[in-house]
Amino acid sequence: MESAAAIFASPEVDAVLIATATDTHADLLEHAVAAGKPVLCEKPIDLSLARVNQCAAVIRGTPLPIQIGFVRRFDPGHKAVHDAVRTGDIGELHQVIVTSRDPGLAPEGYLKVSGGILRDMTIHDFDMARFILGEEPVDVFATGSRLVSPALMEGLGDYDTVTVAMTTASGKQAIIINSREAAYGYDQRVEAFGSKGLAVSENRRPHHMTLSGRGFTETAAPLLDFFIERYTEAFEAEITAFAQAVETGQPAVVGFEDGRLALVLAEAAIKSIAERRVVEVTEVA
Amino acid sequence: MESAAAIFASPEVDAVLIATATDTHADLLEHAVAAGKPVLCEKPIDLSLARVNQCAAVIRGTPLPIQIGFVRRFDPGHKAVHDAVRTGDIGELHQVIVTSRDPGLAPEGYLKVSGGILRDMTIHDFDMARFILGEEPVDVFATGSRLVSPALMEGLGDYDTVTVAMTTASGKQAIIINSREAAYGYDQRVEAFGSKGLAVSENRRPHHMTLSGRGFTETAAPLLDFFIERYTEAFEAEITAFAQAVETGQPAVVGFEDGRLALVLAEAAIKSIAERRVVEVTEVA
Amino acid sequence: MESAAAIFASPEVDAVLIATATDTHADLLEHAVAAGKPVLCEKPIDLSLARVNQCAAVIRGTPLPIQIGFVRRFDPGHKAVHDAVRTGDIGELHQVIVTSRDPGLAPEGYLKVSGGILRDMTIHDFDMARFILGEEPVDVFATGSRLVSPALMEGLGDYDTVTVAMTTASGKQAIIINSREAAYGYDQRVEAFGSKGLAVSENRRPHHMTLSGRGFTETAAPLLDFFIERYTEAFEAEITAFAQAVETGQPAVVGFEDGRLALVLAEAAIKSIAERRVVEVTEVA
Amino acid sequence: MESAAAIFASPEVDAVLIATATDTHADLLEHAVAAGKPVLCEKPIDLSLARVNQCAAVIRGTPLPIQIGFVRRFDPGHKAVHDAVRTGDIGELHQVIVTSRDPGLAPEGYLKVSGGILRDMTIHDFDMARFILGEEPVDVFATGSRLVSPALMEGLGDYDTVTVAMTTASGKQAIIINSREAAYGYDQRVEAFGSKGLAVSENRRPHHMTLSGRGFTETAAPLLDFFIERYTEAFEAEITAFAQAVETGQPAVVGFEDGRLALVLAEAAIKSIAERRVVEVTEVA
Repeated sequence: MESAAAIFASPEVDAVLIATATDTHADLLEHAVAAGKPVLCEKPIDLSLARVNQCAAVIRGTPLPIQIGFVRRFDPGHKAVHDAVRTGDIGELHQVIVTSRDPGLAPEGYLKVSGGILRDMTIHDFDMARFILGEEPVDVFATGSRLVSPALMEGLGDYDTVTVAMTTASGKQAIIINSREAAYGYDQRVEAFGSKGLAVSENRRPHHMTLSGRGFTETAAPLLDFFIERYTEAFEAEITAFAQAVETGQPAVVGFEDGRLALVLAEAAIKSIAERRVVEVTEVA
Repeated sequence: MESAAAIFASPEVDAVLIATATDTHADLLEHAVAAGKPVLCEKPIDLSLARVNQCAAVIRGTPLPIQIGFVRRFDPGHKAVHDAVRTGDIGELHQVIVTSRDPGLAPEGYLKVSGGILRDMTIHDFDMARFILGEEPVDVFATGSRLVSPALMEGLGDYDTVTVAMTTASGKQAIIINSREAAYGYDQRVEAFGSKGLAVSENRRPHHMTLSGRGFTETAAPLLDFFIERYTEAFEAEITAFAQAVETGQPAVVGFEDGRLALVLAEAAIKSIAERRVVEVTEVA
Repeated sequence: MESAAAIFASPEVDAVLIATATDTHADLLEHAVAAGKPVLCEKPIDLSLARVNQCAAVIRGTPLPIQIGFVRRFDPGHKAVHDAVRTGDIGELHQVIVTSRDPGLAPEGYLKVSGGILRDMTIHDFDMARFILGEEPVDVFATGSRLVSPALMEGLGDYDTVTVAMTTASGKQAIIINSREAAYGYDQRVEAFGSKGLAVSENRRPHHMTLSGRGFTETAAPLLDFFIERYTEAFEAEITAFAQAVETGQPAVVGFEDGRLALVLAEAAIKSIAERRVVEVTEVA
Repeated sequence: MESAAAIFASPEVDAVLIATATDTHADLLEHAVAAGKPVLCEKPIDLSLARVNQCAAVIRGTPLPIQIGFVRRFDPGHKAVHDAVRTGDIGELHQVIVTSRDPGLAPEGYLKVSGGILRDMTIHDFDMARFILGEEPVDVFATGSRLVSPALMEGLGDYDTVTVAMTTASGKQAIIINSREAAYGYDQRVEAFGSKGLAVSENRRPHHMTLSGRGFTETAAPLLDFFIERYTEAFEAEITAFAQAVETGQPAVVGFEDGRLALVLAEAAIKSIAERRVVEVTEVA
């Protein structure tokens, strides 16, 4: 960490990208801010909300752009849903549904240090729900099941199949549907329903060849798989947005507080599963 | 009712179809069974679970086919999802998502006597969830919002926007997403996710003309609207199935207990919204 | 035929529907007109253009509605393409592409008396092209191949695979793509391309269940098959239109001359294949 | 050109990419081969078939990989159609339909030196047809219309709207449908129909957000536009294939003769339009 601080201090360093192991994010982020350097930090900021809150206190008031790596906000399709909501194309927003299924269970070693599905995987969907909602959820209900790999999940005290239902103060509903393993590939969809219409960001494929034979028509290309392929343009747009923030000194479009609030929702969901009840966000925030 | 009993008793009556006002269903059903006639009764059997349970006691043990009008089970697309689950095409079932949005708010007069959205509209989705799950939900969490017509819903003590999350004993998850008003039409989708794949019954349109112009491609046909148009084949298949049950004396494919159990889930969901907590199905059954 | 004339003369007969063997159409049509009765006659009017022209002379000037059974004009999707052209939604029309493939080769007995693929099958597509074009083709080029059943086609002097390219006086292009046998079902598509856009009537299926598994997503429902299923609404709309013509005395929306001109195009195409050259429509008309 | 020859001779030059003005292609290609360097040359080799034939004579027998820039062969979707034909997934091939419409008329200056639509634009489709067919067309019929910009086309002696119908010795049919201007964007589709099925490479969009409102559902993303965006992966795969040919010394997957034969078909089509008749390929080859 000392060496990191030394490197960050170098006048040749314009900005810091943190893509190390999760438990080093907060320290590096604090060092970068101390060195006066803008930061693009991979999600999650930390698995511990206490540590994230501490980090928030440390960097409070910094004018530096701090961007958190919620790359999916930059996906052209998901962003188009967001924009359709903001421009009023679908009227007043009523419901958001985020379907997010990974193509396959990560290795046990990864899962052990992941912080659990809610902090590791669903955290993207909490951010997506907030991104589309434009309003904070006030309560969270979550259900966790062990269906993909029951014994492993039992051992880890984790879940592989999750549903989350959240409500905002104005009554908007957000639903997250997760699985650690979808046999048909990386399932990434976002649906926004409002008083005037529906906007849906559908799954994507590398091409659109369809094959028809006796009794069937199939799309011959599988879903884009995995996140590097599915979110290629999003990663490009994310880094471009960060570069613009660095150059203009404007705040990042996805900031530290977004990272913190997604984790707050994850904590609320974890508590909801553990206690089998609706959890007010204020209970954990 | 006496006249109904007299009519039912006529040897010229082979079977009884009950499509009258909801509060007459149970009486007519009992009369028909007393007259030894098979029955196809529109859903719901009654708005009161107590009355339905009483009716169940009255007709207990009857060998007559008693079919409840859950017409959506007969929809070719929804049935194909069901079949994909039963045949193992999607492996072990993990999650069921039923999206069901009406094209527009029913008139106030109708809403007043409807028993509320859960008993009136969601009841179809409770049945669909049970149909796909092949296993009973053991707990129910529901959220109700007033977003389409807040003042009217407030006055009725009802909701126009509902999310329901249910779990079965084995951990299968079922999510129901409802709205009383979708500007784009009658939105009827069913999704089943399992260990080997995904089956989705998509919305349907009267034809498939697409129009492309500068910057857009649109399907020029709106969704099939309303249930008479959307479920035409299903209504035909439903009555055919009933006729076969009458002719063969086999039990109806959607029986009295299906009607009762859907109402049990509706009661659990109503209690969940009222008490803002997860409700065990055994609490209301 | 005398008995037909006698029946047609009956005051209890309001109108005549001719759906008999092709070689009886013209006679029956003449008898019906002689009896003062409106006619809905199945296509083709006759396999011989000379006979059709003779029939035209016989009935010339009749104010009776004479409708020819080009049912596809009444298909909601194809009609929507037509309407998009007429309303200017796609601007000035430039190209029309009609893809029409049967699900399987008809029996040899049928093929022998069918008049050949151009008069029997492509005739529908000639009419569809005229319907969409709103302008008469002035020249026709056609290619016929024997690929589905070469020996049988050789024996019949017929073709099972056909491409037709036609041009109107203003330079609009119409292409017809035919096969007697598409393994994947009844392929019926119409595309209209214009200066402002594209309208496409796509194939239809009985439902829209999609099944996704490892590496594939397929539509689980085959194409609507065969014409009775595919054009159900069209047959209903056709007979309704005829009934309206009968009641109002207005001319039929698809009249005798439409039937005659489609046959003229078929004759031109047959000549084109035989002589391997472009044929002016005036050569055969 | 001398300077080009000098550069090509440098030992630091491993291979030559020719992307200069068309009238320099053949000279540069000859220089590169003389210098012993593999070549990737943009299409067309030359607008004059005589010059191409001369060039062919000059380089005859060279073991060097000479690749012609028919980039569309490398498109994942079009290639998947090709592969479905080669693997027998659609059985015996019967018909190929290539729809290729540019998003807008090129500037007059470009059109003047383009060699006309057949040599400039359709040449890609002639190559695509050959790529899918796996068999040489033996005759060509083409129709050219002036519908997009009649006065300009009249002045240039060119066409903006073209249909081509070709047949192979075994009776396979290939249809090319072209326009210089599609208001809805760059329309690039390939369809292969065979005895066992149909393979279609559909248009592509940058994302798949659909927006539904009262009476409509639209895809909110326009078609990928123009060729740089539409064929990004294809350009990458093309250059990769060339690099592999250079490294392994294997023949290029799209060679000089492919470039020459596409031009032969263009010449046949030009003659067909001029003389309003079917042209045997041997007449121009």
